[in-house]
Amino acid sequence: MKQIAVLLFNDFETLDAFGPVEILGRIKSVYSVAFYSLQGGHVTNSHGISILTQKLDEIPPNPEIFLIPGGLGTRKEITNAALIHKIKSIAQQSNFVLTVCTGSALLAASGLLDHKSATSNKRAFDWVMSTSNQVNWIKNARWTVDGNFYTSSGVSAGMDMTLGFLADQHGVDFARSIATEIEYHWNEDEDRDDFSEQ
Amino acid sequence: MKQIAVLLFNDFETLDAFGPVEILGRIKSVYSVAFYSLQGGHVTNSHGISILTQKLDEIPPNPEIFLIPGGLGTRKEITNAALIHKIKSIAQQSNFVLTVCTGSALLAASGLLDHKSATSNKRAFDWVMSTSNQVNWIKNARWTVDGNFYTSSGVSAGMDMTLGFLADQHGVDFARSIATEIEYHWNEDEDRDDFSEQ
Repeated sequence: MKQIAVLLFNDFETLDAFGPVEILGRIKSVYSVAFYSLQGGHVTNSHGISILTQKLDEIPPNPEIFLIPGGLGTRKEITNAALIHKIKSIAQQSNFVLTVCTGSALLAASGLLDHKSATSNKRAFDWVMSTSNQVNWIKNARWTVDGNFYTSSGVSAGMDMTLGFLADQHGVDFARSIATEIEYHWNEDEDRDDFSEQ
Repeated sequence: MKQIAVLLFNDFETLDAFGPVEILGRIKSVYSVAFYSLQGGHVTNSHGISILTQKLDEIPPNPEIFLIPGGLGTRKEITNAALIHKIKSIAQQSNFVLTVCTGSALLAASGLLDHKSATSNKRAFDWVMSTSNQVNWIKNARWTVDGNFYTSSGVSAGMDMTLGFLADQHGVDFARSIATEIEYHWNEDEDRDDFSEQ
């Protein structure tokens, strides 16, 4: 089984994490999902969620995907040097890193996005850009792919990016079949961003 | 604050619950979200989630919304007489009941959908129909509204239904603004169902 390690922290954005988890989690013959936080234990957010996590130190070596959601908690966590250090070391040993929304700011803080293309939430774009001037921030994108780094725009865009990842790994017909299973209208074009000017 | 009571049970479908929760949970000036299960404690599913819940008995009186997700767990829970009994009593005292995917089968089992219109996941539709012949099952619908009962098609359709609920309660412009916040392409037409014949 290929391991999906989902990073959580207090005040993560609900759908940033659980949209991609819905998509990857249902491919049970390939992927196994688990949730992690710096300290382990329960992680909460303002949507009433309290979810059990393991410690980041417990991630098995070389996960297939390291998924980093966004949310208001990123404003605090970006100054958490211990977390950013862990994000860097886990991202370096993951086959792919997927970020949703302001999750790209956390990855950028690790330095691993330097000189790479990335995007983020359009409503927090100025803040995200301010966190690193070494990243080629792409405002007009549903999601971006640069090497093994996938970054998406806000919240729902994480689902489109995850289906795009599946298309790259398993073919577009497979990705479409998963979208159909969850009755989701997949926005297939990573370059079409209807929210960048709103 | 208007209370959103989300029912969970083992093997609930991730996005069925967390899609609507993302939408309602971000309207913090109006809605407060909490999660409940028959026994309380941790509820798990095959996507690696272990989420803390309160007991259904702890739901405050007269919640604004009782949200019932679907998922493979419904196959087991539909025979859980204690749960179905609780679903009935909570639904009767809720201002609105929203079901996603096969969650409508659990509500149907309570008898409260008798002689009402409802829909469900298109990939489980025959099973859902088999659970009650007293419901006017509508196959070709993204979501349905009958009185204070909202029911949606599979998984992602719950997000469209929830935005439809917001449009009914707060106006379509408000619903669209929330969709834009989460960069979601809302499928606004409850009667358009691109998945009913697939």
